[in-house]
Amino acid sequence: MAVEHPYVPRDLELHGYVPNFLSILDILVVYAAGSVLSVLLTWVFSGRYPKLSKTDRIIMCWWAFTGLTHFILEGYYTFSPRFYQEKTPFFLAEVWKEYSKGDSRYAARDPAIVTVEGITAVLEGPASLLAVLAIAWNKPYNHTIQLAVCLGQLYGCLVYFITAHLQGDNFSMSPWHFWAYYIGANSPWLVIPTLIAARSWRAISRAVSTASTTAKKGKTL
Amino acid sequence: MAVEHPYVPRDLELHGYVPNFLSILDILVVYAAGSVLSVLLTWVFSGRYPKLSKTDRIIMCWWAFTGLTHFILEGYYTFSPRFYQEKTPFFLAEVWKEYSKGDSRYAARDPAIVTVEGITAVLEGPASLLAVLAIAWNKPYNHTIQLAVCLGQLYGCLVYFITAHLQGDNFSMSPWHFWAYYIGANSPWLVIPTLIAARSWRAISRAVSTASTTAKKGKTL
Repeated sequence: MAVEHPYVPRDLELHGYVPNFLSILDILVVYAAGSVLSVLLTWVFSGRYPKLSKTDRIIMCWWAFTGLTHFILEGYYTFSPRFYQEKTPFFLAEVWKEYSKGDSRYAARDPAIVTVEGITAVLEGPASLLAVLAIAWNKPYNHTIQLAVCLGQLYGCLVYFITAHLQGDNFSMSPWHFWAYYIGANSPWLVIPTLIAARSWRAISRAVSTASTTAKKGKTL
Repeated sequence: MAVEHPYVPRDLELHGYVPNFLSILDILVVYAAGSVLSVLLTWVFSGRYPKLSKTDRIIMCWWAFTGLTHFILEGYYTFSPRFYQEKTPFFLAEVWKEYSKGDSRYAARDPAIVTVEGITAVLEGPASLLAVLAIAWNKPYNHTIQLAVCLGQLYGCLVYFITAHLQGDNFSMSPWHFWAYYIGANSPWLVIPTLIAARSWRAISRAVSTASTTAKKGKTL
């Protein structure tokens, strides 16, 4: 027998929908445990590089966490158009069945959502993980790749929020889902990339100033 | 009497549509004349800075041209949802009535299109013009802002082309309009930002390497 989906708008057609097996708490606990593990491992790894500042090490943890989120969670979403038909309590399908209560455009396969998630998973996921190594190894493109990924994340957030507004903001089951999932779960990706982008922008400007002073001195000698 | 619009898909509803007054040739001549003028003025302006390389000066012309295109053409589109009802041969409305023959999502006010055009007009337009000055005045954020705008342009192109594909690529009046408008008119914004982004990325890496060598020397002395 067909089960009715809980998503808004109510006339959204989702054939073969199978409800969540896990509660929101179960899902959060698993996600938090995975995130804490990735942060801890990155913290230990970064400790092997004594020249890194504490801020660098904290930012490496963020890149590991966000990179794995992009690559695994958003990668699964991008390539699983029928996640809502999943008949087992497979964690990644559970995440998106639950999240769609806050934004049904995910289940509805809205083209802007699939595009932004695809770019985030395929390009920004691996680039975030590369940023972890670029910081550890103090590569010359260290701040450039951080800035690039931050700008991509911010562009993605803009597309996400502006298309929602243009479409009439009608995709949340309840105000609670709207604020907790749509606003709450996404706002870290507005705030943190803004802070890291500003930091990397300043670091690049400092390096360029130093390099150009050095070049001038070289000419004067 | 209502005039039928020429756009595809044929069931697209556009009340009060008024056909083009200018031919595609008229439109191209005006756009080309405006572009050549902006390039010439930028070339003359850049000539006042003798330290600039010829490549820098050419790239300044590109930033002036693309910045004005973003700001004026795409700015008009973003804030003119009823451009297809324009009853005079107003140039900016003519551009978008014509371009919609290659991509009717413009006339249809597709949310992803409006979002990308809005970001491009409001953020990337002014930032492109700032890049002209940043190069002229050799600011420390010269290459950073160029890279940032290029990445924004590339992200916009990705959203533009991927959403089109996901929506079934059904928005061109004819294969000619598809290739000339949808592919042809957009591909410069894939190719040129890729080249400039790579150049600025390398310039930043060089500066960071020089600055870090200088810092090490300072410590050794």
